[in-house]
Amino acid sequence: LIHIGGIAVLSIKNTRIPDAVIRRLPVYLRHLEQLLASGVAVVSSQELGDDLDANPAQIRKDLAYFGEFGRKGVGYDVRQLKTIIADILGLNRQQAVALVGAGHLGTALCHHNQQVDSPIRITHVFDADPAKIGTRIGSLTVLDARDLEFEVRRAQIRMAIIAVPADAAQPVVDRLTSAGVVALLNFAPVSLRVPEGVYVRHADFTSELLSLAYYAQR
Amino acid sequence: LIHIGGIAVLSIKNTRIPDAVIRRLPVYLRHLEQLLASGVAVVSSQELGDDLDANPAQIRKDLAYFGEFGRKGVGYDVRQLKTIIADILGLNRQQAVALVGAGHLGTALCHHNQQVDSPIRITHVFDADPAKIGTRIGSLTVLDARDLEFEVRRAQIRMAIIAVPADAAQPVVDRLTSAGVVALLNFAPVSLRVPEGVYVRHADFTSELLSLAYYAQR
Repeated sequence: LIHIGGIAVLSIKNTRIPDAVIRRLPVYLRHLEQLLASGVAVVSSQELGDDLDANPAQIRKDLAYFGEFGRKGVGYDVRQLKTIIADILGLNRQQAVALVGAGHLGTALCHHNQQVDSPIRITHVFDADPAKIGTRIGSLTVLDARDLEFEVRRAQIRMAIIAVPADAAQPVVDRLTSAGVVALLNFAPVSLRVPEGVYVRHADFTSELLSLAYYAQR
Repeated sequence: LIHIGGIAVLSIKNTRIPDAVIRRLPVYLRHLEQLLASGVAVVSSQELGDDLDANPAQIRKDLAYFGEFGRKGVGYDVRQLKTIIADILGLNRQQAVALVGAGHLGTALCHHNQQVDSPIRITHVFDADPAKIGTRIGSLTVLDARDLEFEVRRAQIRMAIIAVPADAAQPVVDRLTSAGVVALLNFAPVSLRVPEGVYVRHADFTSELLSLAYYAQR
């Protein structure tokens, strides 16, 4: 057991938490923040399930990865649960993110990130196109992709977003991981090879639409 | 058994294919297209695993949902497998998609979709902002969101992308589903309620980044 926010939870180093659970945590977190803002102090898995259109049993199973802090027949302490989830995700401090590729998608993601209140901030934008280098995207200036390793190392950046064309993605990823990046969100429609211990999430829009088509045909 | 592309496969109506498998199919499909373009006729699960940085056993398990068409010790016929996956996803004909919300993200998705060669095409873009209605995004003109039901019904659209602010998402989704949309890709950072039988995939960028932070902290 380790202590996070004063509450004993299972060590996340010893328990392998499935990626699907990790991906649901921001949804729980956002809803808990809304409940807290509405003055709700305690919530049951049944209520969470109703609100989130999810299975209460799955919610209980997901949250059990982080310890037995729900009280049977009563529910979860909203503030406590919110704190635990934020701590597990590492959201108790600002996390800098490098974005590579200042095309339509990269620019949109950058604007979007600047509009929302999130501890995860795009702090560096890179592009190889001389016409884009030096231009502004909201509060950021597009940097020369040649300086990528230098800037990523200097700012100790561990997260990056890939928004370059498919054929440019792998070299960019190699450079990012060599400079210390360990978590990647990849919008390029291509599979990536990464060193052991580096996590890649694919968020390729074209693939999302292709697989969505399966559900549209019936 | 039903026949797709001349090949006997398990009926997808009788077999519940996990969503995670459906989501991996576009990745297999893209790679098979690349292999075919390179003149490769047969591929083993081991080779697919090496190329895609995936587990060969998982690939075999995924593909077994669609029948036993791989030949032990030989591999998969690339063209046959490509045809089967495309048929299962319903990609043998064009599929029209409505996009609601012509902000930064919606505009980027629209440009992106027009740049790639895909049977899934954004054919209608809607926005409620009078300043945006009538403007062009590539080959499309932004339509008045008041005409949403009428246009979606007229074009018999079954897929839609939600790129509106969080508080506008649920009413838009209610209108889309009432007009016949059954598959939704949601970029708004909010949980959605949909009628039975309607599929929603969440692609909320802020949540993706928040959960990615988990992998960046270690």
